[in-house]
Amino acid sequence: MSPSRRQALVSEIGEFQLIQALARGFSAPGPQTLIGMGDDAAVLAHPSSAHLVISTDLLVEDIHFSKNTSSFYDIGYKAAVANLSDIAAMGATPTYILVAVALPTHVKYGDWKDMYRGLSVPCKAHGVQLVGGDTSASRTSLFLAITILGQVEPGHALTRGGAEEGDMIYVSGSLGNSAAGLACLTHRPSHGKVSALRQPMKFLARRHLRPTPRIALGRLLSSRRLASAALDLSDGLSGDIGHLCQQSRVGALIQEASLPLSSHLLAYASQVNVDPLSWAVHGGEEYELLFTVSPKKQHRLEWAVKQLGISATAIGVITSRRSGLQITHQDGTTQELVSQSYVHFSE
Amino acid sequence: MSPSRRQALVSEIGEFQLIQALARGFSAPGPQTLIGMGDDAAVLAHPSSAHLVISTDLLVEDIHFSKNTSSFYDIGYKAAVANLSDIAAMGATPTYILVAVALPTHVKYGDWKDMYRGLSVPCKAHGVQLVGGDTSASRTSLFLAITILGQVEPGHALTRGGAEEGDMIYVSGSLGNSAAGLACLTHRPSHGKVSALRQPMKFLARRHLRPTPRIALGRLLSSRRLASAALDLSDGLSGDIGHLCQQSRVGALIQEASLPLSSHLLAYASQVNVDPLSWAVHGGEEYELLFTVSPKKQHRLEWAVKQLGISATAIGVITSRRSGLQITHQDGTTQELVSQSYVHFSE
Repeated sequence: MSPSRRQALVSEIGEFQLIQALARGFSAPGPQTLIGMGDDAAVLAHPSSAHLVISTDLLVEDIHFSKNTSSFYDIGYKAAVANLSDIAAMGATPTYILVAVALPTHVKYGDWKDMYRGLSVPCKAHGVQLVGGDTSASRTSLFLAITILGQVEPGHALTRGGAEEGDMIYVSGSLGNSAAGLACLTHRPSHGKVSALRQPMKFLARRHLRPTPRIALGRLLSSRRLASAALDLSDGLSGDIGHLCQQSRVGALIQEASLPLSSHLLAYASQVNVDPLSWAVHGGEEYELLFTVSPKKQHRLEWAVKQLGISATAIGVITSRRSGLQITHQDGTTQELVSQSYVHFSE
Repeated sequence: MSPSRRQALVSEIGEFQLIQALARGFSAPGPQTLIGMGDDAAVLAHPSSAHLVISTDLLVEDIHFSKNTSSFYDIGYKAAVANLSDIAAMGATPTYILVAVALPTHVKYGDWKDMYRGLSVPCKAHGVQLVGGDTSASRTSLFLAITILGQVEPGHALTRGGAEEGDMIYVSGSLGNSAAGLACLTHRPSHGKVSALRQPMKFLARRHLRPTPRIALGRLLSSRRLASAALDLSDGLSGDIGHLCQQSRVGALIQEASLPLSSHLLAYASQVNVDPLSWAVHGGEEYELLFTVSPKKQHRLEWAVKQLGISATAIGVITSRRSGLQITHQDGTTQELVSQSYVHFSE
């Protein structure tokens, strides 16, 4: 793309050409895509042997992201991961994506292309095709609404509602990196140049901007029926464990000493004199999977996860509903675990 | 709902309660809905005998609607119809809907409920279930992104790409009402009180605010293979005929004298001294179906449409690609038909 075209306003390019420029970065349409982009709707041949999984997710400027800490590429990348992660949390395989975007009229064509490049990279890595979209101007903020489709074997979908008393609570990866990464970026805006940061901030900022959708882990858990319940960590452990327990009608006891923390998180927390556990317990946008496993399946789970090369750590146990949500601190005291999740409508 | 609750800010209600309040107005989940609202994604049993149809549509405040001319109920109603109309244009049966909405924090709970009531009414009329959504605050405008699903018999979907030279061009209903209705409302803001308007403005304003998705007509055209191509009129005849011709690689000749105009449109145009044809040819948001029919099928089509109790009028003929888009005026002269569709990115 020529530098002058990159600098052109999106408003100078026209909606039809914008749509035409989209599909390239994504996976090529397969034989199941009977009608793709460019008609009133897409037509897809859904395999009869699978159930359809579908979710929609909204990203709003200055609520979910800020241009101070995210480039257009970052915004697209994370929007795709947030959606892929919902499919992972159901134990499904992602297949198709639809993207609706409202763009402030001052947005440059190059920025718009960067956002779609960011969207396409994690989608392509998982074979996801772009089959629909809508592009509009906005007189105010940037707004991105994504719908993702997937498929799963009948009866295998992971829900939030299957956890039982005595099940072990697991989490993939390590906790708190994304929230700490946001703290780094807020103090040192990167504008897409995370590579310019030094460790441990570089690692944390990358975890914030380039989270990993745990598709392979979700597939493992659902296909082998290893988890009794699962969801992805978007609101933070303290909030999301509550969602799981509410749907399953159970309580939970989390062991603070068991929470997996990265060496980079510990190093940065020490530098800035913050308790790393506050990020690990309450920090959002991790996109790790939080799931429960019957004690009978624990050995099979741990072996299978090891084969996959992903870390999963037991961090607590499902208790009775009336016990509520509790956390045992490192000093041995046990307290109620109160969500400090980000609530969109609080100012 | 108590008056004080109606006046509460959406920001005081909380995201979880908002989601819980949603599903009531829509069709109840059927046996195909294995997991509905409230998990990371919905899980649906898609029938193996049908193809999946999916489309996404975005509505942005002060681009697609204005609170000066639309109530919250109106905004929801028309958003639902715009999406149902995309499914109608494919000849499919609508099944599920997902709604992502970003709400300015000053929005009242009662307004939010009204918007969902508006969304649910046309959905329920067509048996459409709400299976997913996302609600967020917005620091600026109201944004609404809807994804709709449907199903159609394999090989029966109506596309924009099947029109052939010599096919007749048809349109359902009458043209120009929505644009004229917007003109009425702009001069006399109704704020949801269309009933207070007098004829002919009342009829036109209603066509603008409560368009009809032509589901039954779309199903008729696809199930009996009566149409060679179809789309719904959202950008206006002069723009949408271009989309159909581009995808079908053909031209079109429209007969101005054949365009179906309502008596209310003629009366209002005469009152305000505007050419009614300018609304009929260029006005958007009609949500009528524009479709092409082989001359061999014309009699079958006209008989079948009559049985359905819908009007469909032949307004022109498909020509060769190099003839381009033309219109024969009432005085017998023929000119190039130039789109005056609303272009989102023009200011």
